[in-house]
Amino acid sequence: MAVVVQKFGGTSVGDVDRIRNVANKVKKEYDKGNQVVVVVSAMAGVTNQLVELCGDVNPSYDMKEYDTVVSTGEQVTIGLLAIALQSIGVPARSFTGWQLHMITDEEAGKARIDHIDVDDIKKCLDKGIVPVVAGFQGVDENNRITTLGRGGSDTSAVAIAAALKADRCDIYTDVDGVYTTDPRFVKSARRLDKLTYEEMLEMASLGAKVLQTRSVELAMKYQVNLRVVSSFEEEPIGTTICDEEDIVEKELISGITYSRDEAKITLSGVRDEPGVSAAVFDALASANICVDMIVQTDSADGSRTDITFTLAQGDVNKAISVLDSNHDKIGYHGIKSDTNCVKVSVIGVGMRTHAGIANKMFHALSEKGINVQTISTSEIKISVLIADEYTELAVRALHTAFNLENKHII
Amino acid sequence: MAVVVQKFGGTSVGDVDRIRNVANKVKKEYDKGNQVVVVVSAMAGVTNQLVELCGDVNPSYDMKEYDTVVSTGEQVTIGLLAIALQSIGVPARSFTGWQLHMITDEEAGKARIDHIDVDDIKKCLDKGIVPVVAGFQGVDENNRITTLGRGGSDTSAVAIAAALKADRCDIYTDVDGVYTTDPRFVKSARRLDKLTYEEMLEMASLGAKVLQTRSVELAMKYQVNLRVVSSFEEEPIGTTICDEEDIVEKELISGITYSRDEAKITLSGVRDEPGVSAAVFDALASANICVDMIVQTDSADGSRTDITFTLAQGDVNKAISVLDSNHDKIGYHGIKSDTNCVKVSVIGVGMRTHAGIANKMFHALSEKGINVQTISTSEIKISVLIADEYTELAVRALHTAFNLENKHII
Repeated sequence: MAVVVQKFGGTSVGDVDRIRNVANKVKKEYDKGNQVVVVVSAMAGVTNQLVELCGDVNPSYDMKEYDTVVSTGEQVTIGLLAIALQSIGVPARSFTGWQLHMITDEEAGKARIDHIDVDDIKKCLDKGIVPVVAGFQGVDENNRITTLGRGGSDTSAVAIAAALKADRCDIYTDVDGVYTTDPRFVKSARRLDKLTYEEMLEMASLGAKVLQTRSVELAMKYQVNLRVVSSFEEEPIGTTICDEEDIVEKELISGITYSRDEAKITLSGVRDEPGVSAAVFDALASANICVDMIVQTDSADGSRTDITFTLAQGDVNKAISVLDSNHDKIGYHGIKSDTNCVKVSVIGVGMRTHAGIANKMFHALSEKGINVQTISTSEIKISVLIADEYTELAVRALHTAFNLENKHII
Repeated sequence: MAVVVQKFGGTSVGDVDRIRNVANKVKKEYDKGNQVVVVVSAMAGVTNQLVELCGDVNPSYDMKEYDTVVSTGEQVTIGLLAIALQSIGVPARSFTGWQLHMITDEEAGKARIDHIDVDDIKKCLDKGIVPVVAGFQGVDENNRITTLGRGGSDTSAVAIAAALKADRCDIYTDVDGVYTTDPRFVKSARRLDKLTYEEMLEMASLGAKVLQTRSVELAMKYQVNLRVVSSFEEEPIGTTICDEEDIVEKELISGITYSRDEAKITLSGVRDEPGVSAAVFDALASANICVDMIVQTDSADGSRTDITFTLAQGDVNKAISVLDSNHDKIGYHGIKSDTNCVKVSVIGVGMRTHAGIANKMFHALSEKGINVQTISTSEIKISVLIADEYTELAVRALHTAFNLENKHII
């Protein structure tokens, strides 16, 4: 008898028929004799409606009240799914975040889970009852409702799986797994059977919208056996996300991702002396602006240099005004920004032991005449910034160059 | 400085503009230096949508899950109203039933309030914060969400007013008070300034849909100074519901009500011997059917009689099948039912001390050729059952007979 956590996203519970479909999937697992915990999101579109209502009342709403309003979305789903399960003979009961004692910090709208009390869930499981848990929400020490931020239901599911030491945490979604790249760009994109946590983390934070980054971090920390599967298939296979050592047949490169939410700012004529870079990035950090890639060119005459960095598009105006107000301290000649750029990345744990990946990547891009503006690397990924219009071309070229349509075991 | 509880129904918070209007009404009271607690219903239509969703999943839903789903309606309103209040400079925070420790019994869907912990509310009031409370909902001892049944927000408001020993409990609704009768029938119907709890109780249970009966019972028990006012007027006057001794200028008759949800069943040829009536009404009571008026005619020859009783229309089929299955025990000849009937009542505490009311009532009806089928009376009301098509005629005739368009002080 295994303990299985199943999480169903908004599309999977989008209407009453789909909720019945989910109930059948839960029953299938339950009928195997497994102890099943279900975590659900709000019905597709509901959260957006609730957010809009808050904004209609006042665009600068109190986040604690926002959380009170928005958390009702999941509360509706848990009740309906519990009713649907009972209708097909599966004993079930719903749990909101506060009923579960899903204790979070007080950061309304983006709270982090502090601890979970799974006693009530265990009691249900021991009685053969399926607990149906509202994802995305918790309660802080002051008894106020909190939400975990967009995609937070994944994190709820993983946290519960971790607390229960569940055998498996299945994330049901509208895709049937994690692909080597976006199938809308590359028809031959291949579903990956297995992926390491580290790779998934890079994938998640670089734009593959399958799982929330924090849920992967949490799964890695507590060694939760995570699986991404489709709610719309009869016998889902999906992609398993696990420890590197649990993957016998490792692939060299697991995927090509891209992220469009990128912008570039270049400061020209910056004094090339100690402390200037610090002045730039201290100012940005104080304004809570995350900087991703940084490139500093060597100055020709040793006195002035250019600094280029990338950031989220939404932060560009704020960053420019912050830099402007620190102009005297930094002392640059010019400032320019570019939001017409995209970050394309090659990801794979194989990079740790195999050389030549970067080389192959740059060759593939230059063959298509794509200019690389900025480069950044980690142990298991290489990212480049290119002009937006080359996104599809670059992704296709890289997918072919690394022969990702075929499994390539190292 | 007074403590005032303001309750706003679903129509009053029906959309974002109306929520802003409510916020202004709260601010007006707050700016007078009063401590204000606000109780709200779900936005008009929302509760029905949620009930429908439950029914779509399974018409015989688990009431505990129903309560989980349906209670989200008020949770949305409290968040939105708190945001609206903050926007106009009134510090506010929302409270769900469980956050307030509005403890109820476990009767899902029609729970009764057991006790309320108003400590958190008092703390808010002392800090100048307006607590915005979700009506209609509570939590049972097992930490499950409960609802109080339709119109339960009135009861929530009165219960909080009682617990706080509030100076006033204002029920804001879409009418501007309690009228001598339905203004759709009688144009000269007059808004009553004051009404006793007893009269309001009769009015509420006899079809004047202004207040939930239980809220009036509770107000009477704890001597809560209750006022029905319109949300859509600038300076509402409304109707005050209070103790008889607080009304200096008592009126003889306070109102004419009617209730269409009435049906009549007649058992003919019943054996006229001890225990037969008991057999009839025991059987109905065991099936949880409430009987209202009962009439037993004298038998001509002393051996057989007819029994007529009234009940809610929805219970007719059930009652007939219950009586059928007890046919041998009761021993009647025939059974017939009639749903084409209405109960019209004359209400007023003045009846206690003034004779001739019934007489005047029957005269007024007979003058219009209206046949009275059944009569029942209490200390402060006289009800008659008549054919449905005479409703408007009867109400108008009685309103004129008792000269209700003018104040008539006793």
